[in-house]
Amino acid sequence: MRNIKLVLQYDGRNYHGFQKQPKLPTICGVLEKALFKLTRENPHIIYASRTDKGAHAYHQVVNFKTYSSLSVDVFEKALNALLPKDIVVCSSSEVPLEFHARFSAKSRTYLYLILNRKFPSPFHLHSALFIPYRLSLERMKEGAKYFLGEHDFTSFTPSIEIYKNPNRTINRLDIKKEEDFIHISITSKGFMRGMIRTIVGTLLDVGRGKLEPSEISKIVEAKDRRMASETVPSHGLYLMKVEY
Amino acid sequence: MRNIKLVLQYDGRNYHGFQKQPKLPTICGVLEKALFKLTRENPHIIYASRTDKGAHAYHQVVNFKTYSSLSVDVFEKALNALLPKDIVVCSSSEVPLEFHARFSAKSRTYLYLILNRKFPSPFHLHSALFIPYRLSLERMKEGAKYFLGEHDFTSFTPSIEIYKNPNRTINRLDIKKEEDFIHISITSKGFMRGMIRTIVGTLLDVGRGKLEPSEISKIVEAKDRRMASETVPSHGLYLMKVEY
Repeated sequence: MRNIKLVLQYDGRNYHGFQKQPKLPTICGVLEKALFKLTRENPHIIYASRTDKGAHAYHQVVNFKTYSSLSVDVFEKALNALLPKDIVVCSSSEVPLEFHARFSAKSRTYLYLILNRKFPSPFHLHSALFIPYRLSLERMKEGAKYFLGEHDFTSFTPSIEIYKNPNRTINRLDIKKEEDFIHISITSKGFMRGMIRTIVGTLLDVGRGKLEPSEISKIVEAKDRRMASETVPSHGLYLMKVEY
Repeated sequence: MRNIKLVLQYDGRNYHGFQKQPKLPTICGVLEKALFKLTRENPHIIYASRTDKGAHAYHQVVNFKTYSSLSVDVFEKALNALLPKDIVVCSSSEVPLEFHARFSAKSRTYLYLILNRKFPSPFHLHSALFIPYRLSLERMKEGAKYFLGEHDFTSFTPSIEIYKNPNRTINRLDIKKEEDFIHISITSKGFMRGMIRTIVGTLLDVGRGKLEPSEISKIVEAKDRRMASETVPSHGLYLMKVEY
């Protein structure tokens, strides 16, 4: 028995997220099919971070156990030949049997990409959120500070979700502008469903002046989803890094 | 009568180039339809540079004459509402009647984008040429020098094309690497059909060692299309700038 680790990149526009769902195209479903073609096994795929429908990955990590004796190079090349072109294996390696893409991960970093200018871009219809109104980066940076550290993030996940422990620790939340794009980069050991996109939605309301930066602490303390802003769409969201 | 100038961006993957063609989707065809809806006129659209099927533009300039009294701001906003999302009007302005997007232009700058690494990118399937083999930037830069200045570029355009004057002057040809991408940027008053993509194909053969940089002058002197390398595909090609 071997444990194989893959690093994947994918454009999520054509998929209903990573996690397998009956009858819907998902990254995991497509990867399982390709692995079956290659090994005639049905390996259980473990992944570092569940990405939403339409969200992308520059660096998703998965692992699976196999009896196949194929070299890791062959795994990479054969999977890239079998997978659709919008899912790419960047690297493959054999790892100790105890390596677990999800439980061994120390942190995940996501990027949310915003195009902030007067007119949209034909090149980023599915890869960045277009915001034509003015955003104050200073206000957003000020607001971001209130998210840092450990908090109960109940206000930032759909009310129907139930978590035993709704506390999460945000290690970094960086905001920068590069030409017409605003990059919001956020690192934590783990996130709850919708959490990153609701944090970004709330920061946008701070940036446009609908909320004061300091109001974020009240929203966090309320532990009430209705207090936070709208969840932004998933097509601006990228899984960027998983650290072990 | 007014003369309106538009600057356009478009993702060319779904179009058979800029130039109108019967029964095929083209940028010009789609723009004419939108202008008709807006003005009930059938203006003749003049454009700075013909882009190929599948090629893109960050900065295409067009102009047309109209009797419409709509403000330039309304032209921009209404066209962006009427056009498909992969064609965007970045700006519109009223210009002197003698302004001609094609004949008034002093130079055109195109970019050819190459992804040069081991594995392809799911984010650049239609927006960069993927080259997995090693390319020497030094050799390519050395080869680029032989294209500069005025030459007969017959070797770099399909033999079936007939030009009264096959001489063109390349003002700049810059090659740089940014992360995994090679940017080839080329400026001239005008290009012949297929010329940029055949120059790039020839530079790739220099970069991979199939041709010596100095052989380029022999290829130019031969005035024979069979001497130059393969024409690279159009999905890596971008019209970047038109100067007046």
